[in-house]
Amino acid sequence: MSHEVEILLALFVVFVSAQIGAEIAQRLKMPGVVGEIAAGCLIGPSVLNLIHIDAPLEVLAEIGAVLLLFSVGLETRLDDLKKVGRVAAAVGILGVAVPFVLGGLWAGTIGLATPKALFVGVAFVATSAGITARVLQELGVLDRLESRVIMGAAVIDDILAMLLLGVVTAMQGGGGIDISNLMLVLLQAVGFVVLIALAGTRIMRHSSDLLEAPINPRSPLTLSLALCLGLAAAAAYLGLAAIIGAFLAGMAVAETRQRHTLERQLKPIEALLVPFFFVVTGANVKLAELASVEALTTLLVITGLAIVSKLVACGIGAWSMGLRSALIVGVGMVPRGEVGIIIASLGKQAGVITEGMYAAIIAMSLLTSVVAPPALTALFRLKCDTESAPQ
Amino acid sequence: MSHEVEILLALFVVFVSAQIGAEIAQRLKMPGVVGEIAAGCLIGPSVLNLIHIDAPLEVLAEIGAVLLLFSVGLETRLDDLKKVGRVAAAVGILGVAVPFVLGGLWAGTIGLATPKALFVGVAFVATSAGITARVLQELGVLDRLESRVIMGAAVIDDILAMLLLGVVTAMQGGGGIDISNLMLVLLQAVGFVVLIALAGTRIMRHSSDLLEAPINPRSPLTLSLALCLGLAAAAAYLGLAAIIGAFLAGMAVAETRQRHTLERQLKPIEALLVPFFFVVTGANVKLAELASVEALTTLLVITGLAIVSKLVACGIGAWSMGLRSALIVGVGMVPRGEVGIIIASLGKQAGVITEGMYAAIIAMSLLTSVVAPPALTALFRLKCDTESAPQ
Repeated sequence: MSHEVEILLALFVVFVSAQIGAEIAQRLKMPGVVGEIAAGCLIGPSVLNLIHIDAPLEVLAEIGAVLLLFSVGLETRLDDLKKVGRVAAAVGILGVAVPFVLGGLWAGTIGLATPKALFVGVAFVATSAGITARVLQELGVLDRLESRVIMGAAVIDDILAMLLLGVVTAMQGGGGIDISNLMLVLLQAVGFVVLIALAGTRIMRHSSDLLEAPINPRSPLTLSLALCLGLAAAAAYLGLAAIIGAFLAGMAVAETRQRHTLERQLKPIEALLVPFFFVVTGANVKLAELASVEALTTLLVITGLAIVSKLVACGIGAWSMGLRSALIVGVGMVPRGEVGIIIASLGKQAGVITEGMYAAIIAMSLLTSVVAPPALTALFRLKCDTESAPQ
Repeated sequence: MSHEVEILLALFVVFVSAQIGAEIAQRLKMPGVVGEIAAGCLIGPSVLNLIHIDAPLEVLAEIGAVLLLFSVGLETRLDDLKKVGRVAAAVGILGVAVPFVLGGLWAGTIGLATPKALFVGVAFVATSAGITARVLQELGVLDRLESRVIMGAAVIDDILAMLLLGVVTAMQGGGGIDISNLMLVLLQAVGFVVLIALAGTRIMRHSSDLLEAPINPRSPLTLSLALCLGLAAAAAYLGLAAIIGAFLAGMAVAETRQRHTLERQLKPIEALLVPFFFVVTGANVKLAELASVEALTTLLVITGLAIVSKLVACGIGAWSMGLRSALIVGVGMVPRGEVGIIIASLGKQAGVITEGMYAAIIAMSLLTSVVAPPALTALFRLKCDTESAPQ
């Protein structure tokens, strides 16, 4: 009975502290996710020690992450990628390549072996489509050209980052780079992603009816959730991150007629479960690991590198749109948010990333997510003023 | 990584088998819940051994049960209890007292000590408001007088059963009946239930605005979920069942203006999480424990006792409505469904109920839930034919 009380109390404390943290963050004009992670830090073992992270909370956090990425996938359509076209592709590819190389090189210079250094590089790559989209939505500029480029690039970025993550994760097993194994892993990862992203979306596009009776007499929601859990498990089974599978499942379901209904139905599920992911993430940060001059220096270097590499690479990718638009796109790509955190968590679970590095990457993901929204807001306002002046 | 695959695969298997089981059950004109439990039996250790029940699955099942009872509470209004009035109260009270006494006496005759025998008695008491409501809804007769009496009585029944459960659970600790302790427990249970049911609903009735900004800037859903988790934890802390707290939280929130929105938002959450409760329940049944003549005899006796005691007691309670209506009400109160199963699970967790008795009670809850819906359907059709004949 005492154990039941403990679990229920932990669920209550995690959920409520997430709400309070998100609320405070949003009042400070920051994304709610920043507050949820901070709340996790606060109630976790590092500070108040109100909860300890056990298997059930870890699984709830994993389900939260899977559903979050499913939902991000659900807002992502193959056609959107095609429409924003060349610029988004340039931004997305440069935005992955430059931070990955610079991050990996930096990790190499501080003495990490190649596979581990590459893993750290991947943590620099991720762009949080969720945070960026939420900020753009709050600003009411989702229909602007820059926003569409950002969203398209963020999607390409996400896919490339996940692909890289899959490749780099699988590489951790071997002592060095086994080319034939790497090729197999790459083939497997690319095959899975391409199969689901192209064939899956194509199949779903023509099977909205399949989601309804009589072939699927359960609701479209239950079939979609089953697809999400199934592809998450399949991705994990293939050695990819589970969230890749969930994201692809979302992208496939995004092609159906029922996508808006499903988006609406997913909201309450996310409201309940996603906070567990961010709070557990925050609770896993060992603040003590950041409490030295050396660690703080590392944090500042990582954060600076993360911001500059993304800003410059994406800015160059969007250069054809003009300086200010390029700046907006660059800043919009800066937040690492949940994707960076998921990668860091995976790295820590796999024993690839040390406690100190984990704390630094989480803090970096936090800082980039905190810095970008106000900058983005300022740039959009500045641009609007300049644009409306000549009228 | 392998552990992650295992967990995700278990989630997928549980969720999908629940859907398939529910679908098959519904095609056989049985409540979906019967199929979900049967699916759990099938994939559990007893038969296919596809999943084993560990802490994360147990917690997911508990969250599922808590949310289910929250949702049942959300469909329950104090005013409904008052409107159907005297008849519903008579049906509810007799429907608790008679099965409790007969069940407890029977458990005593097979040699159980008083506190354990009383616990078994409680498992006879529960009426599944969920199953009954779903059947009445499918028949399209929710507005009929019998239906309103059934629902009102089911609610009274639920509250009395939960109260009994709390009292009987707390009694398991002591070696005998400690009157002063019993009074304390009773006072605590009644105090908690009355406080939340009366004061809580009254407060919520006048605080729909509280669910909106600016006092609660998060959504009404998040505040309601927090209330649900909080009262579930509080109930468990007081030694009551967590689901009592969740049910009362639902009843309190049912008094707000946002109840219909919340009911709609809870549906997707239930669709994801409630199946875990029923499948885990089924997976926990040790079929081997039922594989003897003695065990099967026990099962038949329990099921017969459960049906007859409820039918006669509730029929007498509704006698003033005429024979056929009294029969409808009696049959409508027969399904034990999830409430009986929750009580049996709690009894097993607390070590009060043996594996054999647990398997028998689950099977009884299943059988009563399977038997009642067709009988109810037949009685309603019969009554309609007779009524329309003289016109």
